[in-house]
Amino acid sequence: MVPHLITALTGPINELEQRILESMPAIERWFRLEWMEHTPPFYSSVDLRNAGFKLAPVDTNLFPGGWNNLTNEMLPLAVQAAMAAIEKICPEAKNLLLVPEAHTRNTFYLANVQRLKQIFHQAGLNVRLGTLDESITEPVTMALPDGSELVVEPLQRHRGRLGLKDFDPCTVLLNNDLSAGLPSVLEGLHEQYLLPPLHAGWAVRRKSNHFQSYEEVAKKFSKLLGMDPWLINPMFAQCGQVDFSEGEGLECVQTQADALLTKVRRKYKEYGINEKPFVVVKADNGTYGMGIMMVRDAKELADPSRRTRNKMSVVKDGQQVSQVIIQEGVPTYERMNDAVAEPVVYMIDRYVVGGFYRVHAERGTDENLNAPGASFVPLAFAESNQLPRPGAKPGASAPNRFYMYGVIGRLAMLAASYELEATDPDAEVYE
Amino acid sequence: MVPHLITALTGPINELEQRILESMPAIERWFRLEWMEHTPPFYSSVDLRNAGFKLAPVDTNLFPGGWNNLTNEMLPLAVQAAMAAIEKICPEAKNLLLVPEAHTRNTFYLANVQRLKQIFHQAGLNVRLGTLDESITEPVTMALPDGSELVVEPLQRHRGRLGLKDFDPCTVLLNNDLSAGLPSVLEGLHEQYLLPPLHAGWAVRRKSNHFQSYEEVAKKFSKLLGMDPWLINPMFAQCGQVDFSEGEGLECVQTQADALLTKVRRKYKEYGINEKPFVVVKADNGTYGMGIMMVRDAKELADPSRRTRNKMSVVKDGQQVSQVIIQEGVPTYERMNDAVAEPVVYMIDRYVVGGFYRVHAERGTDENLNAPGASFVPLAFAESNQLPRPGAKPGASAPNRFYMYGVIGRLAMLAASYELEATDPDAEVYE
Repeated sequence: MVPHLITALTGPINELEQRILESMPAIERWFRLEWMEHTPPFYSSVDLRNAGFKLAPVDTNLFPGGWNNLTNEMLPLAVQAAMAAIEKICPEAKNLLLVPEAHTRNTFYLANVQRLKQIFHQAGLNVRLGTLDESITEPVTMALPDGSELVVEPLQRHRGRLGLKDFDPCTVLLNNDLSAGLPSVLEGLHEQYLLPPLHAGWAVRRKSNHFQSYEEVAKKFSKLLGMDPWLINPMFAQCGQVDFSEGEGLECVQTQADALLTKVRRKYKEYGINEKPFVVVKADNGTYGMGIMMVRDAKELADPSRRTRNKMSVVKDGQQVSQVIIQEGVPTYERMNDAVAEPVVYMIDRYVVGGFYRVHAERGTDENLNAPGASFVPLAFAESNQLPRPGAKPGASAPNRFYMYGVIGRLAMLAASYELEATDPDAEVYE
Repeated sequence: MVPHLITALTGPINELEQRILESMPAIERWFRLEWMEHTPPFYSSVDLRNAGFKLAPVDTNLFPGGWNNLTNEMLPLAVQAAMAAIEKICPEAKNLLLVPEAHTRNTFYLANVQRLKQIFHQAGLNVRLGTLDESITEPVTMALPDGSELVVEPLQRHRGRLGLKDFDPCTVLLNNDLSAGLPSVLEGLHEQYLLPPLHAGWAVRRKSNHFQSYEEVAKKFSKLLGMDPWLINPMFAQCGQVDFSEGEGLECVQTQADALLTKVRRKYKEYGINEKPFVVVKADNGTYGMGIMMVRDAKELADPSRRTRNKMSVVKDGQQVSQVIIQEGVPTYERMNDAVAEPVVYMIDRYVVGGFYRVHAERGTDENLNAPGASFVPLAFAESNQLPRPGAKPGASAPNRFYMYGVIGRLAMLAASYELEATDPDAEVYE
């Protein structure tokens, strides 16, 4: 179950919705059994694309920002989920150290940090902020547009523990995706809980590992529902040793893109979909919508423009791109006032706690919406007459639609759990 | 943390509120540690009375009805809590058998059953209703005012398991308080979870055990906050072998009432409270506001009227009263449109999921409001500008007020947990 939300959108009717709604008890039981074997990420957000004929996650964020885009009505749900999460990890906790992005005075981001601080404070923790910015040696006060303030303090490391002055936390919560690399101050914190773990950061994490895990999850889930996993799974391929700026390794990308386009074309034919397939080439370690290009014909990759080469060679925090993922493009056919929209689902522990539509008026249905100019439309709670009704026509009930989004969001979260287990450098190996 | 709610009420300012709000992290941590040692009731509701100078629970219901009085906005929170509860008890569950009150076609009660069914369905269970009414041998369909229907089916007992035709549940959830006695069909269900346990039913349960446990909890909590436990604890005494109809055992009630009135008078003097104390005499096994009388002077008990004798001698389902509890009366000084109001807090597992005000226009501040003529005003979610602000003046912020109610509600729930452990007939005794 997820919060049942209303949306002003009327996306295409999805057969999937009917099947997911009918199978609700079976689905929830399946998740319960999965969570007996696997640990959910502490928090996460998932970008979805609804093509009408297919619904798939395209990005799973393990250091979610944008919490300020959720409605206030969502706060109790987030707090309740946070209570459940903390209780499992560290019930005796008094203090939580939150580590936000360094070098940011962006007020939207600060509003996100403030919201996170509020959630964990209301869950019953003293929350303070510590920064990875080593130039900060004294507490710094930052003003927010609403008149409130945030204080960011320098980290203090004492042997196996990380804290602040007079502040010894049980848990260190990262809201910094470590694109800039693994800071030594975070290594070897064996006496505390560091969440998410270091290998979830983009200095180490690879999208291809995530989508490999997602494929496994999607297959299991599709077996449960007796359906084609392709309906929820974006196909993908990968290439290593790519250097866009030098034009090296592009043959691999071209070959893989061509093969993937052929596979997608075959699927479109099977389902009678009259669309021109496309694939998305992304940095395997990228985030923030950087290092992404759309490809409709593999020939486009033979001789990319200077601009494309530059765009594709570096992602956030100057991180170099050398591995790429080539992913089936999923168009989004949801609209809000004529602007293209994609749903984003937010989770804490195993619970969906909210979501919003990312809307971009200047982008096409096949483009990435995580770009400057995007706006956010929170999904509000369902009104009484819109509470989910199993009898409602598929696509006619927004809460039913959002239940489906919550299920797919949770599948991606479960995939992240599989992924983090598979990539854990400290995992015990049983041979 | 509890949902932060708005209320149209402006009750008297409570010093307690300030202290509770300031201590939020310490309080939440304390609850987390308590729940490591004790199991919360599956669900519960607590009636509170706010006298301005004192805030106390007066009734803790382990078979809560009235779920239909909660707003729809509360549903996601209730569902999320239900998911957490089920996951702990029976993660592999597919089916939940809900046993409502027998012999009731009261549409308000049926709306409550429907709401419970909805909560647990959305938490991912197949929910069906089984009745203790042995005259029902075939499924019976009951219509609700909103046009929906409920089907109640005869129970089927097979050795150690209870179910319905073609329905084998993992958990049997009682919404029937067993005032009519312990039905043999519910005994010895060793292969399933029966919740709440049989000894939580009014055939066995005693208010005096609950308030003894509550006193223990209130003392612990008050030590944490460095305050007088009396501010949250209603004092009480008890008498056994009372027969109101025959006038037997009334000396004990009179003596205890007199002693309790003296104790309350002393407390009022200590705090400079200019009120006339009163005590409430209740059936120790009663519910539904039956078998209750207010006493301002113990002499009133010397020769009770015929009407009082009758009123006090029998409670719900014809159960005889022979033990009574004499409890300090806590006036309620909350009003809604001039009608006397008292808050009721609803919980699933350890989480506060909602609440409402019970309002009675024809009752006084010292009277029981759980009586014909009562109406229910749901507490809606807080608006953005009313989210809890630790800086807000005590009494000025309704969400802060409701946080306090949630804390006291949870103290009563914790007391119920202590109580059920202490009264468990199957408990292992370590000597």
